[in-house]
Amino acid sequence: MSNLIAPHGKEERLMPLLLEGAELEAETERAKSLKQIRMTSRETSDLIMMGIGAFTPLTGFMTKADWQGVCDKFLMEDGTFWPIPITLSTDDEEVKEGDELSLVDDETGTLIATMQVSEKYTIDKEYECQAIFKTTDLEHPGVEKVMKQGKYNLAGPVKVLSESYYPEQFKGLYHRPAESRKIFDELGWTRVAALQLRNPMHRSHEYLAKIAVEVMDGVYIHQLVGKLKPGDIPADVRVKAIQALVDNYFVKGTVVQGGYPMEMRYAGPREGLLHAVFRQNYGCSHMIIGRDHAGVGDYYGPFDAQKIFNEIPKGALKCQNLNIDWTFHCYKCGGMASMRTCPHGKEDRLLLSGTMVRKTLSEGGDLPAEFSRPEVVAILQEYYANLEEKVEIKLHGAATGEVKK
Amino acid sequence: MSNLIAPHGKEERLMPLLLEGAELEAETERAKSLKQIRMTSRETSDLIMMGIGAFTPLTGFMTKADWQGVCDKFLMEDGTFWPIPITLSTDDEEVKEGDELSLVDDETGTLIATMQVSEKYTIDKEYECQAIFKTTDLEHPGVEKVMKQGKYNLAGPVKVLSESYYPEQFKGLYHRPAESRKIFDELGWTRVAALQLRNPMHRSHEYLAKIAVEVMDGVYIHQLVGKLKPGDIPADVRVKAIQALVDNYFVKGTVVQGGYPMEMRYAGPREGLLHAVFRQNYGCSHMIIGRDHAGVGDYYGPFDAQKIFNEIPKGALKCQNLNIDWTFHCYKCGGMASMRTCPHGKEDRLLLSGTMVRKTLSEGGDLPAEFSRPEVVAILQEYYANLEEKVEIKLHGAATGEVKK
Repeated sequence: MSNLIAPHGKEERLMPLLLEGAELEAETERAKSLKQIRMTSRETSDLIMMGIGAFTPLTGFMTKADWQGVCDKFLMEDGTFWPIPITLSTDDEEVKEGDELSLVDDETGTLIATMQVSEKYTIDKEYECQAIFKTTDLEHPGVEKVMKQGKYNLAGPVKVLSESYYPEQFKGLYHRPAESRKIFDELGWTRVAALQLRNPMHRSHEYLAKIAVEVMDGVYIHQLVGKLKPGDIPADVRVKAIQALVDNYFVKGTVVQGGYPMEMRYAGPREGLLHAVFRQNYGCSHMIIGRDHAGVGDYYGPFDAQKIFNEIPKGALKCQNLNIDWTFHCYKCGGMASMRTCPHGKEDRLLLSGTMVRKTLSEGGDLPAEFSRPEVVAILQEYYANLEEKVEIKLHGAATGEVKK
Repeated sequence: MSNLIAPHGKEERLMPLLLEGAELEAETERAKSLKQIRMTSRETSDLIMMGIGAFTPLTGFMTKADWQGVCDKFLMEDGTFWPIPITLSTDDEEVKEGDELSLVDDETGTLIATMQVSEKYTIDKEYECQAIFKTTDLEHPGVEKVMKQGKYNLAGPVKVLSESYYPEQFKGLYHRPAESRKIFDELGWTRVAALQLRNPMHRSHEYLAKIAVEVMDGVYIHQLVGKLKPGDIPADVRVKAIQALVDNYFVKGTVVQGGYPMEMRYAGPREGLLHAVFRQNYGCSHMIIGRDHAGVGDYYGPFDAQKIFNEIPKGALKCQNLNIDWTFHCYKCGGMASMRTCPHGKEDRLLLSGTMVRKTLSEGGDLPAEFSRPEVVAILQEYYANLEEKVEIKLHGAATGEVKK
């Protein structure tokens, strides 16, 4: 028997919507004859999250009542806690309630699911943005995506047919919730903290993970492997860098690496809650919430994502937040610390901006060992060196034909 | 309204047995005419713990049924969880049930309480030792105390009249549970971890406290100020050293120092539970349990005191254990770590035995900054320097008449 936290929702069991075997084959065949709807990468990734049970207990895209309840009071119509609308949109005027659709990822052309349309409705997008993102500023990448959605939302139950390229491309890293739960069970874990990552892991992240290791059974380093913004470090490089860190600086059996396909919405506090909801499904009893969790720009206070866990109704969410303050190396403390544990001044702390880190690495420079482990720096340096090459190739390759190796 | 953890026991309120005002005066007067029983320092300190409400919900020394239940299943007759017998013993043949007694601290002659004898009974001391200490070896200091107890145990409700010298001698440090609760409330704390200390605070203890600061609202550094074994560092020196550490290496408002009068029993796991029970009364939601908590010699496995929290009935104890492994500085990690977070070898770690630390300090030597903060070392060096002086005085003072200052 598993001692892990129960999945989210009243039924307390994982509800993956992915078909298998003969059922999958038959439905894939049937999908060919259905009207096709092209989805954004956000919609595609949400559908895969439903498919693998990470969005348990959702059975499909949300109805208007669900959408309204989630925006207004974090609750779906049936009383299930949910912090961010999971919706599908279209501009198609012809789709109507009762239709059967096939849902295709617009970017890759992959058939992801079929769906029965139970409701076609319009929403006040600005209202959603204000409720979820606390802004309607189009500069906010999450707002931009919502405002670009189609005119109509389509609700209804889905049957998921594919996990797209994730299982293949992120073999060994990509887990379904049933898989991570099995791993935790085998390790004998009960209290598991999830560490959300979308960047390489420097010592500040290592420190977050290690605090959790000290007080929990283990840490699930759970990386976003969904679509990235240009300029971000690709998932394979991040995975390699994190593996080097785990291999050299963690005790075996205290951390597990995993990847999940969801896209960032940058909804800050609300997204922190969503991260906790689906981490609960993955078997995590705790969600590490650091400074400016899932934030972007200056839209949220640095600890809004911690505070919101106290504002939701008690018992709405079983997975608890593990709040950790801003972390850094302090020379006077003689080690890693946070604003909660270091009483010293700025001048004693090693603080490097993301921009400065990228600049240093892309110029082949070294990062101080107090900021990043040498094993990690080496992997990032190699990536930037090759990147520079690619840029050089782009700029000069055609002219000179030279490719440095 | 307080958000702190409720005190131990069904009534969920502090039950101090200390009389005040006119009642105190009258009972003190009445005590003069009562038969006197002299108590050991252990019995005296237990009585003061009852007086201030630290042993809530006890109303006096335990009956035979309570004693038996505590030994056998951690439960008093009324179902209250309690891990170690709190008993009073005597060799007095004349005391009989129904007697009214005055209870006096044998060492200081201070009148501590009055008591109505509800039961006079004998116990199987070896049985108690085996149940509580898991040994009957007289080398064990806790066993030795039990085996030296009087022939009879006396049960019955007490009225406490004095806190002895504690409030005066440890002014500002000595707290009643109502006082520590008030302090935590004023700081806005809910999740409070207690750190048990009976030694000066080196960096390994600082690290325990800081892990707790990272994940809790605050830490109560709760020092034993009860009687010490010869050779131990006196409470005033410890307090000064800890204050220097707190002032220089902790953020204001994250730690509170306090002292409590109980004596060590060195009962390892069972004492870990007792530490949690009375820390709950002091307002602590968590009790830090490190390596070999409250142990002595090799009587207990290093993590038995952590494991026992999983062996007691669920819900028996509200205060939770916060387990932390053996901590040290690791040069390869580049900071403090524990066996759970450091994968490196012995050769990378700074490990000093207590004996080596005492030897170094008493020879005026320095401890590495990775082991102890210089501000703390300076205070301990000063103590040892004066101590050496005193030894010199003892050995040569009478002959030479010289007293170095």
